Amino acid sequence: MNTAILLYDGFTALDAIGPYEVLSRLPGARATFVASEPGPVRTDNGMLSIVAECSLQEMPAPEIVLVPGGPGEVAARAGGPALAWLRSVHETSTWTTSVCTGSLILASAGVLDGKRATSHWLALDTLAGLGAEAVGERVVFDGKIVTAAGVSAGIDMALTLAAQIAGEQVAQAIQLGIEYDPQPPFHAGSPDKAPAEIVALLRGNSRFVTGDPAPLAAT
Amino acid sequence: MNTAILLYDGFTALDAIGPYEVLSRLPGARATFVASEPGPVRTDNGMLSIVAECSLQEMPAPEIVLVPGGPGEVAARAGGPALAWLRSVHETSTWTTSVCTGSLILASAGVLDGKRATSHWLALDTLAGLGAEAVGERVVFDGKIVTAAGVSAGIDMALTLAAQIAGEQVAQAIQLGIEYDPQPPFHAGSPDKAPAEIVALLRGNSRFVTGDPAPLAAT
Repeated sequence: MNTAILLYDGFTALDAIGPYEVLSRLPGARATFVASEPGPVRTDNGMLSIVAECSLQEMPAPEIVLVPGGPGEVAARAGGPALAWLRSVHETSTWTTSVCTGSLILASAGVLDGKRATSHWLALDTLAGLGAEAVGERVVFDGKIVTAAGVSAGIDMALTLAAQIAGEQVAQAIQLGIEYDPQPPFHAGSPDKAPAEIVALLRGNSRFVTGDPAPLAAT
Repeated sequence: MNTAILLYDGFTALDAIGPYEVLSRLPGARATFVASEPGPVRTDNGMLSIVAECSLQEMPAPEIVLVPGGPGEVAARAGGPALAWLRSVHETSTWTTSVCTGSLILASAGVLDGKRATSHWLALDTLAGLGAEAVGERVVFDGKIVTAAGVSAGIDMALTLAAQIAGEQVAQAIQLGIEYDPQPPFHAGSPDKAPAEIVALLRGNSRFVTGDPAPLAAT
């Protein structure tokens, strides 16, 4: 399976690297980071660059397409070559996938019209406004389209997808290989579990997800 | 808090990016990827390059030091400037941390002598052989040294550390921001939970963690 992972200025690194770490371990897998132009691409906070190995034109028919989210999604869906590329590669892909606000980019490309899909919990209304049937689940399959909730949800999505592609044994072996036995120190990972004041803090700080790339302000 | 994340040929990307995604969101945080030389550094499977922004010499006194694991750890602890750098920065660091087999590098630098520490479950014996008191826990604190189990455990480690540094509210806000409400599709993330045949498969394939960087062979 050949996976193309779309990079753009202001993407969130874990959105891309979580699924990469899983999907690149599938038997015979190849993962390729792609962007408008080859070369380093900056993440949302400006502190990290990941290298795009090739341009979009050089990757016309990946079997899996993965679109990470991040504050840069606003610019990515405002125009540029990514939307046309997504429309094109989706025609022949085996799986078209996103993590977090990457689904807003897929929706802007017209790929999610009327499809069940998810996104970061702070972006579900925006996703619905772009024509998808937005659902607040962690991993959502609709035919060959697979979308994940915010940032870390890409790991769960990729393991679920790995089982579809290569069987449960292989997916379990990958899970054990990356020792994915999560033990979060708090019950704060979703808006229905986190303390109300933390949810309110994030709602007042949604630039954290979709706009200003500054780290979380002091509380 | 200024975090230096050590890169070396053959590191595992999620080991570094999981904690980066958490620690870079601390108020006033700065995360810097460092390596022997600035420039792109290849991950374990050769499919991805992450850019080291500066050399080890340019980062003589980070407050947090983070050492990811990966099959390249064998070469990293065989020699080269990383070991001397780790010994030096550990003298002044506030926190010295590792993920997965990154603890083998810390141990080879002499930093873990007699300290409680963990590693990937397949590497605990090696860790003990290098002088640490190896324990099979997901996140282990011993004074200012914090070590995490395999690959994905770095997220749990970084959230726990974030609470120590900035308080539980900030850590919870970061957890909610990255929507870390894990829902693994299988109970296979640790050797005591995974089916015995999957554990045996991985034990027979430990190059998967510490040696040959090829993806998992077909089963």
